[in-house]
Amino acid sequence: MGSAKDAIGFVGLGVMGSSMAGHLLKAGYPLRVYTRTEAKAAALLGAGAVWRESPAALAHECKYVFTMVGYPKDVEEIYFGPKGLIENARPGSYLVDCTTSRPDLAARISAAAAARGLAALDAPVSGGDVGARNAKLTVMVGGAEGDFEAVKGLLGVMGSTVIRQGGPGAGQHTKMANQIAIAANLAGAVEAITYAAAAGLDPRTVLASIGSGSAGSWQLNSMAPRMLDGDFAPGFYAKHLLKDLGIALDSARAMNLDLPLLGLAEKLFAKLCDAGYGDEGTQALYLMYEKRSAAGAEN
Amino acid sequence: MGSAKDAIGFVGLGVMGSSMAGHLLKAGYPLRVYTRTEAKAAALLGAGAVWRESPAALAHECKYVFTMVGYPKDVEEIYFGPKGLIENARPGSYLVDCTTSRPDLAARISAAAAARGLAALDAPVSGGDVGARNAKLTVMVGGAEGDFEAVKGLLGVMGSTVIRQGGPGAGQHTKMANQIAIAANLAGAVEAITYAAAAGLDPRTVLASIGSGSAGSWQLNSMAPRMLDGDFAPGFYAKHLLKDLGIALDSARAMNLDLPLLGLAEKLFAKLCDAGYGDEGTQALYLMYEKRSAAGAEN
Repeated sequence: MGSAKDAIGFVGLGVMGSSMAGHLLKAGYPLRVYTRTEAKAAALLGAGAVWRESPAALAHECKYVFTMVGYPKDVEEIYFGPKGLIENARPGSYLVDCTTSRPDLAARISAAAAARGLAALDAPVSGGDVGARNAKLTVMVGGAEGDFEAVKGLLGVMGSTVIRQGGPGAGQHTKMANQIAIAANLAGAVEAITYAAAAGLDPRTVLASIGSGSAGSWQLNSMAPRMLDGDFAPGFYAKHLLKDLGIALDSARAMNLDLPLLGLAEKLFAKLCDAGYGDEGTQALYLMYEKRSAAGAEN
Repeated sequence: MGSAKDAIGFVGLGVMGSSMAGHLLKAGYPLRVYTRTEAKAAALLGAGAVWRESPAALAHECKYVFTMVGYPKDVEEIYFGPKGLIENARPGSYLVDCTTSRPDLAARISAAAAARGLAALDAPVSGGDVGARNAKLTVMVGGAEGDFEAVKGLLGVMGSTVIRQGGPGAGQHTKMANQIAIAANLAGAVEAITYAAAAGLDPRTVLASIGSGSAGSWQLNSMAPRMLDGDFAPGFYAKHLLKDLGIALDSARAMNLDLPLLGLAEKLFAKLCDAGYGDEGTQALYLMYEKRSAAGAEN
């Protein structure tokens, strides 16, 4: 099976990438993989994926290449570095970056790809590790319409809501709008819970009153209980949200746009990461307020 | 019918109060009403309610008195002013303030009531005009447990989620936590949509990608479409949210609590009201950003 299918390359096998690549493999596509830490590829290799020593080596053999790495600088290296995708991909192939990255970098990749007869799309996702595992990701796509049509089916193997939002960079911009709302809702949940606890209420009983009405949000209902349980395990790393908010702020500035709530949220998460909590989940923001509240109580 | 039931007084017949009092009347309770603008009582009087010239006159005849007015100063006047409830209520009667008001005022009313052999509870609500009309309000109650048990059934005539959150003021504190989350989610929705529009995306398509996942909130899904439609009709007045955020900030300061997102939200809504939009719905906050964005584009 799958022998009639085009080979697919996948670069970046972290928690998200591993699940996403696994769905492509299960769907019968010959899979070539590369990731910085080879050990992370073990399960996929055992299931039939083939290791390649560089993005270039992988790109030589594939009509579709997906990338899912950590930071814009990683994206930049994989696309533009030595042995990078732009220089080494086969003409007519499709390069799809699923990393949450800079919209302007996505546009630059798209232009460089076009100059070499390649198609590039930005396709960041939301839905977290659970969404990746269950192929229920939301995929926000930027790129030319025809190119989107060519990769839509593959994105549908990994996600359940696949929407083209516009030209190159539009997927990243959509993801930025997503992260702005997440940060606001999460910080709002933290301040609401902090206020309730300081007022001597039982925050869990407060959630029973406020969680389902017009104050309700995914962040309040999913993250506030974790905060109250002292569960700060990462569903989504604080350091990654900080990275995303920095990108959103840069983009907003480039558009001459003043978004004070975004600016405040970025400061709050920078403080959290400075305090050593970058590898905790985003809900660890609560720890900064708990201390603040305790310090206040001492005065 | 209802002749065996205790008379209930209702003070304050705005959009919320009228619906709430109407449910009590329909449930068969003899109803005495008072409100500043008598014309607002017309429908209830036509349905069998009886007009009284002051809170005092009404309180003389009722075992239960509900109040639902605009601002803490109105609450203060109705409870402590000349012809006020505290001085004129029948011993053994229950005074229930449904206004969103100051937690410290609720505690003061409770103490003054107890000194006169009355029971007072704070019972602010959420759910808006629609919730009031459909008797689906969430009622957040502060007061003694026995007093709560005595009025719980009546609150259940007007609301569907009736929870005691603690002693006097606890209902107001819970409502403040609710308003903090609302303000954060609403401002987050405004900034997400503003960002998306400035980036050249179609904000409605963006909502299709981000509305149902971890960025989702009641505010984003209910209010962003209204913003985009240019529909700023008040479901909830901007000036009332500003009042609530001011109360929340005062309470936070009294607890020595630093809530920067709450502080920022209060500033944003103060600006909105200063600009003359206080009588619009809270979603009118978008107008401040639209202008900002347009001004940016001119530079």
